[in-house]
Amino acid sequence: MSRGMHGTTMMIDPGLPTGAFTDVIDSHGRLVDLVKFGWGTALVTKDIDRKAAVLREAGIDFYFGGTLFEHAVWTDQLADYLALVERTGATHIEVSNGTIPLDQRSKADYVRRMSSHRPVLSEVGYKDADRSALLTPADWVEALREDLDAGAVMVITEARESGRSGIANSDGQMRADVLGAVLDALDPAIVMFEAPTKDLQVELIRTVGPHVNLGNIATHDVVGVETLRRGLRGDTLLSLTTGVAAARSLTHSK
Amino acid sequence: MSRGMHGTTMMIDPGLPTGAFTDVIDSHGRLVDLVKFGWGTALVTKDIDRKAAVLREAGIDFYFGGTLFEHAVWTDQLADYLALVERTGATHIEVSNGTIPLDQRSKADYVRRMSSHRPVLSEVGYKDADRSALLTPADWVEALREDLDAGAVMVITEARESGRSGIANSDGQMRADVLGAVLDALDPAIVMFEAPTKDLQVELIRTVGPHVNLGNIATHDVVGVETLRRGLRGDTLLSLTTGVAAARSLTHSK
Amino acid sequence: MSRGMHGTTMMIDPGLPTGAFTDVIDSHGRLVDLVKFGWGTALVTKDIDRKAAVLREAGIDFYFGGTLFEHAVWTDQLADYLALVERTGATHIEVSNGTIPLDQRSKADYVRRMSSHRPVLSEVGYKDADRSALLTPADWVEALREDLDAGAVMVITEARESGRSGIANSDGQMRADVLGAVLDALDPAIVMFEAPTKDLQVELIRTVGPHVNLGNIATHDVVGVETLRRGLRGDTLLSLTTGVAAARSLTHSK
Repeated sequence: MSRGMHGTTMMIDPGLPTGAFTDVIDSHGRLVDLVKFGWGTALVTKDIDRKAAVLREAGIDFYFGGTLFEHAVWTDQLADYLALVERTGATHIEVSNGTIPLDQRSKADYVRRMSSHRPVLSEVGYKDADRSALLTPADWVEALREDLDAGAVMVITEARESGRSGIANSDGQMRADVLGAVLDALDPAIVMFEAPTKDLQVELIRTVGPHVNLGNIATHDVVGVETLRRGLRGDTLLSLTTGVAAARSLTHSK
Repeated sequence: MSRGMHGTTMMIDPGLPTGAFTDVIDSHGRLVDLVKFGWGTALVTKDIDRKAAVLREAGIDFYFGGTLFEHAVWTDQLADYLALVERTGATHIEVSNGTIPLDQRSKADYVRRMSSHRPVLSEVGYKDADRSALLTPADWVEALREDLDAGAVMVITEARESGRSGIANSDGQMRADVLGAVLDALDPAIVMFEAPTKDLQVELIRTVGPHVNLGNIATHDVVGVETLRRGLRGDTLLSLTTGVAAARSLTHSK
Repeated sequence: MSRGMHGTTMMIDPGLPTGAFTDVIDSHGRLVDLVKFGWGTALVTKDIDRKAAVLREAGIDFYFGGTLFEHAVWTDQLADYLALVERTGATHIEVSNGTIPLDQRSKADYVRRMSSHRPVLSEVGYKDADRSALLTPADWVEALREDLDAGAVMVITEARESGRSGIANSDGQMRADVLGAVLDALDPAIVMFEAPTKDLQVELIRTVGPHVNLGNIATHDVVGVETLRRGLRGDTLLSLTTGVAAARSLTHSK
């Protein structure tokens, strides 16, 4: 899915006006590998078909937020949901259980079923911070593995748009125990980490490397994330670039 | 004032460029019932007449922030303020005392006077968090009633653009005692709650219902608020939608 | 550098799409004196030459963030950096040592060298909050003076894009001791204070006056900052405007 040497960048659209959306894709589309139309915004966005066309023309994959899938399951409108996927040409389906009461095994069943329609991105973690905090590192790894076994092409670790639940603590810090367990168990090339804040982006790039797959990137952060991946921002400059041979020549001898 | 089944949504313009403003109204205008040109931004916005024309063409009501009214009173330029209202075709006037030393009874007098020019939206609460904290629930109700008696067509509870003063605490939480007293005393159809943060929006939609009137909605949150009202976001999905008859069928029996 | 009575406003571009950037300059360019293409964003922005042309046509000075200069020094690509300055017609060069290990005296040497290419804006302060906290008020003043002696046309106090390091504490408050020492020692007309948050903007306008030079102003805050300078927002209305002669006439006698 990645368009270059730098890992997948998934941009979330929270309902941008059509002109602004087109402008972002025109200017920064080559830095974007995937677009997610956040949660259920597609149903209240007048021009969702026009936005989809912009992405198809740019050759950028896209899908609808997991909450829209969950809403369809919960309200028994899965047929309508799949019709929307067909009509817009969405390239993927996200399966999740971040909000509705759907246990892990049932979610994996949906991964299997939805895979006959589109490649599935499957998410682990709850939107509620307290519920997510009860998941142990072993729970996370087991759920991610079960979704992969069920056919998901990539698994996503939840962090919402706030970066304050799922794999992040309620104070916005990454849960180091979960991250460590995930990296021990899985190839990071098939995991996408939601990382809507700069703190989370910097921590993941430093820990996993510049190729880490990052999700829920705000439309105004696409360029910023790319500079972080390339060591063009203070936070990663020293860790990602090699200083001049004689770095000490930069400083006067005392 | 509301354009649909979902209560009034008042969007605040903090000084968007003209192109971006037009784009928002083109894409999301049907989700917006009222636009407020925030505080005194109208006086430093080159194209305020063009923006006003965009709203008139879209049939959306609009007015200038209460701070501009207060600035006019404080600097004795009320005639200029009313000329601006006339020239732009603003549909409402906001009367407030959030900043200048204007006591409640004098404010109610201005509600009366301004009502001869335009329907008046009257605001209660101070921008200073400490001053607002001194207002008891009874003070809030009394002030809101006095403004309604003076002719205000709707009353607004202050929360600034930050959601950290007025009816909200300095930590961004709604003052439950004030909210409870207001809902006991008044029909929520004539109260608009400033709710610039998602936390406040969610709390109000859960407490008052999806029809609650919400103000100070950021231009980039118009779609998000609509999804909250319709149960299309995780925060309100379970409370606003009815799950499938056999919700338990979603989960495997153990 | 300032375009009016109100001190220099430096807007930071974090990588806006080209359409949005042009829209901001069209609508608000007359409120902007200087544009900084933040950190290394210029290298991942497709249309940097088009953006530069927009600013040249509008007659607005611009330059690249200090981190791009530091990256060039650190990776031994200073010739490429200067070629970019020439090609785009950037009007200034920022010299800083916020990230790389470059001591103050060596930085002052670069101020001298770069001054043969463009007028130099020199920055004092580190991006790392802990390192910055170790700088005493006397350290700040000495460094600012050394850069001015080396030929800088203006000196900048670091506060990042977050307003949480450099001259600001990690909790976002201005370091009053540093601000006081700077104002005692230097003419504020040749100092630019990075002030990306409203709290910092309000504090500086109240302390230094509406003519204070403010940097790192977000593209969506240009209008807001201008209203603060003119007393058109609640935060500065009472301190910057003179109330009506008989202010007490605003309130009823009890």
